[in-house]
Amino acid sequence: MEDKILLAHGSGGKLAHDLIAKSFVSALDNPLLAQMDDSAVFEANGQLAFTTDSYVVNPIFFPGGNIGKLAVCGTVNDLSMSGAKPLYLSLALIIEEGLFLSDLKQVVDAIRTTAEEASVKIITGDTKVVDRGSADRLFINTAGIGIIPEGVNISGSNARSGDKVILSGTIGDHGIAVLSKREGISFSTELESDCAPLASLVAEMLKVSRNIHCLRDPTRGGLATTLNELSEQSKVGIRIEEAKIPVRDEVFGACEMLGFDPLYVANEGKLVAIVAEEDAEKILKAMRRHPYGKNAVIIGEVISEHPGRVVMKTLLGSSRIVDMLTGDLLPRIC
Amino acid sequence: MEDKILLAHGSGGKLAHDLIAKSFVSALDNPLLAQMDDSAVFEANGQLAFTTDSYVVNPIFFPGGNIGKLAVCGTVNDLSMSGAKPLYLSLALIIEEGLFLSDLKQVVDAIRTTAEEASVKIITGDTKVVDRGSADRLFINTAGIGIIPEGVNISGSNARSGDKVILSGTIGDHGIAVLSKREGISFSTELESDCAPLASLVAEMLKVSRNIHCLRDPTRGGLATTLNELSEQSKVGIRIEEAKIPVRDEVFGACEMLGFDPLYVANEGKLVAIVAEEDAEKILKAMRRHPYGKNAVIIGEVISEHPGRVVMKTLLGSSRIVDMLTGDLLPRIC
Repeated sequence: MEDKILLAHGSGGKLAHDLIAKSFVSALDNPLLAQMDDSAVFEANGQLAFTTDSYVVNPIFFPGGNIGKLAVCGTVNDLSMSGAKPLYLSLALIIEEGLFLSDLKQVVDAIRTTAEEASVKIITGDTKVVDRGSADRLFINTAGIGIIPEGVNISGSNARSGDKVILSGTIGDHGIAVLSKREGISFSTELESDCAPLASLVAEMLKVSRNIHCLRDPTRGGLATTLNELSEQSKVGIRIEEAKIPVRDEVFGACEMLGFDPLYVANEGKLVAIVAEEDAEKILKAMRRHPYGKNAVIIGEVISEHPGRVVMKTLLGSSRIVDMLTGDLLPRIC
Repeated sequence: MEDKILLAHGSGGKLAHDLIAKSFVSALDNPLLAQMDDSAVFEANGQLAFTTDSYVVNPIFFPGGNIGKLAVCGTVNDLSMSGAKPLYLSLALIIEEGLFLSDLKQVVDAIRTTAEEASVKIITGDTKVVDRGSADRLFINTAGIGIIPEGVNISGSNARSGDKVILSGTIGDHGIAVLSKREGISFSTELESDCAPLASLVAEMLKVSRNIHCLRDPTRGGLATTLNELSEQSKVGIRIEEAKIPVRDEVFGACEMLGFDPLYVANEGKLVAIVAEEDAEKILKAMRRHPYGKNAVIIGEVISEHPGRVVMKTLLGSSRIVDMLTGDLLPRIC
């Protein structure tokens, strides 16, 4: 009995207090969280970024990470994509009755480690427990607050004709790694999720240039959907070259086999940057010096023709329109 | 097909964009949300409060509210309990495949109405869809940011011997209303949840006094658990009088029948205030002028004896220790 989550762990009573004290407050130790009031209180002055995501990935453990690491990375990255320095996260868990406490511990350990890497503090939280069958093991929500340095103005609507489009590395790793675990597909080499917090990569980019117009992490819907969003928001066209887009052999092979297009497969440790042409090389170099940007490459440019559309020069030399994802390619990938 | 949520609504692709544009951005219309970047950006200066809660209430519609109203009230109230003026909320939904769009609309309508009443703006959000059987209709997370006015210092650790304990109204209404709907119990008069945003009540209280030491909303675990938390955090004793605690006849009757103690039943529109003795009457009067505080009453006081313990003078005149909730009285009440 003792090594599993019970409904009473979500009651707000004694067991809930014990779980919070033992599993969260001591593991994620910081003075703001330890205050244990209904809200955490902090001082801030300036432009703040605020974001939220829920994580329902299935399975909760996958090669290269787990739902806890993902929940920190995803929200840290959403803040980073606004140019913000991530400061604080909230952490809210919905746990299915019967979850092993050892699994919960592993998830919380990943949360702690990833938050440390990203220099964010988890300062407020919530735990709910639902009866068996009313959820699938564990769902996590994180919301995040970051501060935007002065002079930084990054938005999906800032792309301008002539800008360069930089991709920070290979695409499709996360989606295929999760899928392979879920479906029991094995590769000759272990393919891992790219799940990573990109705050320090963005900080390095901002050190060399403030001419970064758009940043976005191509998660659900993949690179294709992200580029479509940016072209729509900025009312510009985007032209990319298929030959420039890095895809691992394992991902390419799995996509061939399963009938997926890597352009639509989710990433959790990659970003797309749309930057002023004159600073593109400088930014690219800064990215390549960082472990999470070492395979960064310019994949295309922003054009004034066909606003709201993404076109790709294919490997065969023809051009095709790359549309937003339709349907449900890979459910519960994040 | 069209009137239900599909897995593709959570894909990040076209259907997801349509759902977000139609169901959320237009319904919850504000310029920060409409920006549609990965984070919402706002300007803030001072002491900020940050909080989060997930809502898994079953059923999602209950007398006096629904999960959407609850998700706004709960987080607004957690901010208010720090003395903060609530400013912004995030809104993250986990939807089970098959949810009727008409039900979703009703929930979002309640979110809009309640957010308007509480003067908060929903500025960022997320939607996930999980396959049938992996969640129970709809779970909602809201995180909230508020600003703490200068000179306000409210915390669960601020109670001092001699302080008065004020309760804003009847207890147990929410828990029993939800339970009655879930179990199909009917009352001669309809009992409704007390679910309400308490921001304006707290604002009125702060207008007449800054000697408010602790505020807390007695949700999960009820009044008994909240008083125990406050006595532990402040390392003081709390003495209350059973005769002073207002309980509706329907709640009393249902509790008798079901073997519950109203002291442990959840509320969603009530607060406990621990205030300096000299300002207690003034604060009480301000509360009674407000619709959500019209039944406010002083139920006890803070004492230096037995720190960390709550004692109650019972209706029969004896004294008993009121402990924190143990076990799982009423799961999925919020």
